[in-house]
Amino acid sequence: MSSADISSLRQNLPAEVDVLTEPEAMAPFLRDSAQVPDSVETEMPAAVIVPRSTEHVSTILAFAHEHEMPVSIWSAGTGLAGGALPYEGGLVIAMHKMNRILGIDADARLAVVEAGVIVEDLDAEARTHGLFYAPDPASSSRATVGGTIATNAGGLRCIAYGTTADHVAALTVVLADGSVIRTGGRTIKNATGLNLTQLFVGSEGTLGVITEATVWLTPVPQGEPETFLASFDDIEDAGRAVVKMVRSSADLEVLELLDATVVRWVEEDNQAGFPLPQAALIIGMAVGENAHRSIDIACECAEQEGAQEVRRQPGDGLMAARKLSLPALQKRAVWVQGDTGVPVPRLPELISRIEQIAAEEKHQVRIVAHVGDGNLHPMIEVVDGDWETAQHVTDRITAAAIELEGVISGEHGIGIYKHHELPMQFDEATMAAQHAVKKALDPKGILSPGRAI
Amino acid sequence: MSSADISSLRQNLPAEVDVLTEPEAMAPFLRDSAQVPDSVETEMPAAVIVPRSTEHVSTILAFAHEHEMPVSIWSAGTGLAGGALPYEGGLVIAMHKMNRILGIDADARLAVVEAGVIVEDLDAEARTHGLFYAPDPASSSRATVGGTIATNAGGLRCIAYGTTADHVAALTVVLADGSVIRTGGRTIKNATGLNLTQLFVGSEGTLGVITEATVWLTPVPQGEPETFLASFDDIEDAGRAVVKMVRSSADLEVLELLDATVVRWVEEDNQAGFPLPQAALIIGMAVGENAHRSIDIACECAEQEGAQEVRRQPGDGLMAARKLSLPALQKRAVWVQGDTGVPVPRLPELISRIEQIAAEEKHQVRIVAHVGDGNLHPMIEVVDGDWETAQHVTDRITAAAIELEGVISGEHGIGIYKHHELPMQFDEATMAAQHAVKKALDPKGILSPGRAI
Ligand SMILES: Cc1cc2nc3c(=O)[nH]c(=O)nc-3n(C[C@H](O)[C@H](O)[C@H](O)COP(=O)(O)OP(=O)(O)OC[C@H]3O[C@@H](n4cnc5c(N)ncnc54)[C@H](O)[C@@H]3O)c2cc1C
Ligand SMILES: Cc1cc2nc3c(=O)[nH]c(=O)nc-3n(C[C@H](O)[C@H](O)[C@H](O)COP(=O)(O)OP(=O)(O)OC[C@H]3O[C@@H](n4cnc5c(N)ncnc54)[C@H](O)[C@@H]3O)c2cc1C
Repeated sequence: MSSADISSLRQNLPAEVDVLTEPEAMAPFLRDSAQVPDSVETEMPAAVIVPRSTEHVSTILAFAHEHEMPVSIWSAGTGLAGGALPYEGGLVIAMHKMNRILGIDADARLAVVEAGVIVEDLDAEARTHGLFYAPDPASSSRATVGGTIATNAGGLRCIAYGTTADHVAALTVVLADGSVIRTGGRTIKNATGLNLTQLFVGSEGTLGVITEATVWLTPVPQGEPETFLASFDDIEDAGRAVVKMVRSSADLEVLELLDATVVRWVEEDNQAGFPLPQAALIIGMAVGENAHRSIDIACECAEQEGAQEVRRQPGDGLMAARKLSLPALQKRAVWVQGDTGVPVPRLPELISRIEQIAAEEKHQVRIVAHVGDGNLHPMIEVVDGDWETAQHVTDRITAAAIELEGVISGEHGIGIYKHHELPMQFDEATMAAQHAVKKALDPKGILSPGRAI
Repeated sequence: MSSADISSLRQNLPAEVDVLTEPEAMAPFLRDSAQVPDSVETEMPAAVIVPRSTEHVSTILAFAHEHEMPVSIWSAGTGLAGGALPYEGGLVIAMHKMNRILGIDADARLAVVEAGVIVEDLDAEARTHGLFYAPDPASSSRATVGGTIATNAGGLRCIAYGTTADHVAALTVVLADGSVIRTGGRTIKNATGLNLTQLFVGSEGTLGVITEATVWLTPVPQGEPETFLASFDDIEDAGRAVVKMVRSSADLEVLELLDATVVRWVEEDNQAGFPLPQAALIIGMAVGENAHRSIDIACECAEQEGAQEVRRQPGDGLMAARKLSLPALQKRAVWVQGDTGVPVPRLPELISRIEQIAAEEKHQVRIVAHVGDGNLHPMIEVVDGDWETAQHVTDRITAAAIELEGVISGEHGIGIYKHHELPMQFDEATMAAQHAVKKALDPKGILSPGRAI
């Protein structure tokens, strides 16, 4: 693809659409938030293009389709799977300027936004109507609505509110050939046609560019949040306490686990007031009328499973501190970040398998987990640039999770880095069906080729 | 397709698989539950086949694929859209004997069932574990898990628990060519690959035969259900009361509306103790700790909007009676059954538009509605076999709903009878995308051709 060609695309776009071709100008849009080996060189796209409307995206894709150029989609680059990375000679569509909140219908509890709106901005706007936007990845101050839909992002409150998928009502999507489709609707129930909306949720840029989303908002629960923390000498006890809490009648909104080392690092950086446990810390939160009782029940479960210290704590400061665990980890070392999920009752066994694998491989593995929904992030250290060993340990852990009826990715997606693990979860026929759907919507394979599926 | 050919299929199937070819033997499997014009003749399939396993279904579809025979799928025939009806010379796959509950994992809150299990049977089994199966169409004593997944059935409790889609974790599906795929997983969060599970939910037999489902179960809420009813002189007031209830902090599990005539008919048949309203009756139910308070709030909303009589009622007898409204209607006349949905705040306007259309057309239209989620069933009488006029009135009502940001079908699906209305909701590009996906999974178009999409 020569630069002459790009200038012909530029001519078809209004001046407000930035078409960046200088390496320095493009640089911010060529990475995501996963740590990568030094040896990996960034592929150099022909251009990064910054559309302001669905129509612009349509023009860009029609062009890419005609010229069979690979296209990647970048929204905020907080992704951890490599899905937003550029292709050599390809186009990057950078969605961050499509960031208008188009409307909030408070009575119907719906918001319509451009895909580049930052999750926290939507949430803040919703709160002025007594509502909130439930999906809350720890990256919510930077991640976009479109990016979180494209990865079906989770977050801290999934036990109470589900994942991003559960909050998407309708989408505007530009397909590979530039055609624009509108999926879903504004009703609670909808049995009309195929559910293309949920097909695009979690499709990681392989099926189309999401340009607009209609999402559900949720009434803000009454009352102050209440928090507890419980420290454990034995991380498997912590796992068992979690299973008990989830099985109990406690209504928790958040239930997280950090291992002792991670707690120490977060504490060093932020002085959140975490006690330093021997093995692991569980923190949980409840909101609403039954909050106090729910925290009582959770604390009781922790005590029954041998917690060292169990403490109530008002406010949600602990949750803010929890959100800083990934930066605390990335600051101290380089990690391959796992993202397995298992059914909650299998958690203690998964934790014990991880400990065993780490011991066998003599390898540091730290654990941060949305334990309440069974989603666990094993952080596998990369020692002296030896990515291969770290990846081998990661793959063993994924295999263990799959044996325990788990999944390769709970919330970050597959992208590039977990692509080789797909055959652990899907048989050939199931993979073929995914590829058939991909091919139907993107026959030339220009959108995020070779990734996610 | 000659009967010789069918006998070659029979040879590939074990003796336990019934292959019915006699008209009387096939008769029970050649209809669904919608009323149809007398003039419509049943198309005569070559055979009705009753598989007992996924493998049998695979054999049947591989055969149909090879011979390019149209295939329809029948599970209990409670459908109301014509989707399960046979094709002349085609095959009917009747799923009712694949009715084993394969396992319940109470700790993970998951059940694995064959697709032909009756919804109520699954629910009863779940309750022996302190859990229940939330989807509860009024047909739950006959409808199957597979059929309700294939139509994304709603029911009475959708305001509290969502539709069937929200309870499906994983599926085993046989594709048109006989290949077997396994979608989804057993974890709460899953960001691995395309979400084929939700693509099959609501696909009405056009993409594959669902043979097995893994579904989420829900803890049974504590406490006795509480019910209220409120009768209104003016049906639009009733609509406004509903909007107020939904906007309030009342936690309702069920919120239904029946117009005066329907109430009278249900009462004649069942003596449920409904008061006879001038215009409409709302009934609602709440369960769990806040039930009493929620019913208080709902009653207050009803009074504020001018209800004639507002009454609390313990137990769930009213709900059982509510489930009998469709039989009560079908016993008294022939109806084209609408199934529109609108955002809840648009309900009063939709109701007023329906009244206006009925008056303009001088046509009887009865209303039964899952009002709490905005799903409304206008029942358009067929007078003296004049289907055309009734269909015309139906289409006008659908058009009005679409103008109010609604959908053609809230819960029954499109099937045959609403197929001509699809262009009201989808533009060409969106329809083309649905057809592309269909074609990817069923290139020869043998599964429920010409229906649903
Ligand atoms: C500190 C930190 C904490 C995090 N915490 C969480 C967490 O709690 N839960 C969680 O799930 N994730 C978490 N993440 C990961 C990340 O935030 C999510 O994956 C997020 O969804 C990415 O959003 P983004 O807008 O940054 O998208 P990007 O990173 O720009 O893109 C992500 C993927 O989506 C595709 N994509 C982006 N926009 C579109 C679009 N408009 N149309 C189609 N495809 C598109 C991209 O091609 C790429 O494959 C965290 C990341 C960081 C750095
Ligand atoms: C009295 C009464 C009350 C009702 N109340 C409600 C209600 O409250 N809410 C509601 O949503 N519906 C309701 N319905 C409609 C009906 O019960 C639902 O549409 C139900 O989902 C159909 O289930 P079934 O098992 O009878 O499927 P069928 O009627 O046999 O089939 C329905 C459709 O699904 C397809 N299908 C069936 N099984 C499979 C499979 N295994 N794989 C792929 N495709 C398949 C068929 O081809 C057809 O298109 C009611 C019907 C009656 C008669």
